[in-house]
Amino acid sequence: MTAAPNESAIVTAAVLVIGDEILSGRTKDKNIGYIAEYLTGLGIDLKEVRVVADDEAAIVEAVNALRHRWTYVFTTGGIGPTHDDITAECVAKAFGVPIGYDPRAVAIMRERFAEHELNEARMRMTRIPEGADLVLNKVSRAPGFWLGNVVVMAGIPTVMQAMLDEVAPKLKTGIKVLSQTVRADAKEGDIGTPLGEIAKAYPEVAIGSYPFFDEERGPNANIVLRARDAGKLADATAAVQDMLVRVKAAL
Amino acid sequence: MTAAPNESAIVTAAVLVIGDEILSGRTKDKNIGYIAEYLTGLGIDLKEVRVVADDEAAIVEAVNALRHRWTYVFTTGGIGPTHDDITAECVAKAFGVPIGYDPRAVAIMRERFAEHELNEARMRMTRIPEGADLVLNKVSRAPGFWLGNVVVMAGIPTVMQAMLDEVAPKLKTGIKVLSQTVRADAKEGDIGTPLGEIAKAYPEVAIGSYPFFDEERGPNANIVLRARDAGKLADATAAVQDMLVRVKAAL
Repeated sequence: MTAAPNESAIVTAAVLVIGDEILSGRTKDKNIGYIAEYLTGLGIDLKEVRVVADDEAAIVEAVNALRHRWTYVFTTGGIGPTHDDITAECVAKAFGVPIGYDPRAVAIMRERFAEHELNEARMRMTRIPEGADLVLNKVSRAPGFWLGNVVVMAGIPTVMQAMLDEVAPKLKTGIKVLSQTVRADAKEGDIGTPLGEIAKAYPEVAIGSYPFFDEERGPNANIVLRARDAGKLADATAAVQDMLVRVKAAL
Repeated sequence: MTAAPNESAIVTAAVLVIGDEILSGRTKDKNIGYIAEYLTGLGIDLKEVRVVADDEAAIVEAVNALRHRWTYVFTTGGIGPTHDDITAECVAKAFGVPIGYDPRAVAIMRERFAEHELNEARMRMTRIPEGADLVLNKVSRAPGFWLGNVVVMAGIPTVMQAMLDEVAPKLKTGIKVLSQTVRADAKEGDIGTPLGEIAKAYPEVAIGSYPFFDEERGPNANIVLRARDAGKLADATAAVQDMLVRVKAAL
């Protein structure tokens, strides 16, 4: 397999969700699952997610922990016009760079708002850390930004999704993970041991077992196999299918 | 305000979600929001959430980071019968204690399964770190456990919820956070500055602004005020309501 110019074998990411409302349970996060699926589709491995409060120390610490560890960090939330929107300031602090009113962001806001509407609160949304690129969005117009390997996005799902579409073509992407799902039609407890043996025999294939309750059969499971190599994935999938036939015949 | 015997002013928690399927986006997490709301209802402040892969190093590191920082850690996922269920082993490792087949857990499994069904895979679910208490559940029967300040629960929402109900009466709880929601019927950008002044004037009241799109009015926001002191909450709420009247009259 040859990598395309902006494609290396493994590209990783973390998501950092910022917001008291998620931690209080008042708002149910819809971004983590969306970003996870989106990155998987691009060939980027989401390795870690954190949710922290609207708290400077917590945000700065999480940004720094994650950006040094993974290829990309995607943050959501905290870039609106109110006092609890402190993400931009915190990212500037994490990188140790100044932050100020960004002329490009001000120009965008001027297109949308009349001069008398551009009060202190709305101008907060033009504060961008030095050295960052803007991440445009057509939904709310107010931009996110991209500094180093950290992509700072809005928390409102429609706005976040527009921003993700904006940055996606510029991201390094890895070789896509291929996956196969095999419905076990068996109980996890009956197939766990031989499945573990297959997992050991195919170390390049990540094999997960996800139980669910089946109205007809009761406890059931989906076996999900994931790998970057199509041949190894096919071999391991065949091994799982053979095992299921064998185990079920013996029950 | 006097604290009840098992009530101290502030009790905190973290949630640790364990599972490749959440990070790949294949499964959308339903536990974070549920636990967040549940803990808030108990008077426990959820301060941080992490999602990590089915990876020993990642799980051990996260358990240790979180358990030293917050009153409680609630984990979900990775306690089933298959090879990718490694949470119990990892928690034992994080605490530096041995793990083995727990006679109490074995007895529970014997009630549910015939002897020939108690194979190696199902017996995995009886492996409990030394010194842990079991967390029973009536849905799947296979127990979770509670070691130190870490509560280890299943990933399947119905099972997790039963386990949470089981541990809830035994948790230390803090003074409940009271909250008030004021619908702004105004744009965040128009109220951001005076709202920030109110937030500064009432440091014991956490004030959040959550924008949403209103079919009739367009951009709108909910102002959520949260505090442990009912009097301060009422004062800050009144200040927000007065401010909204004032600002909207001036628009």
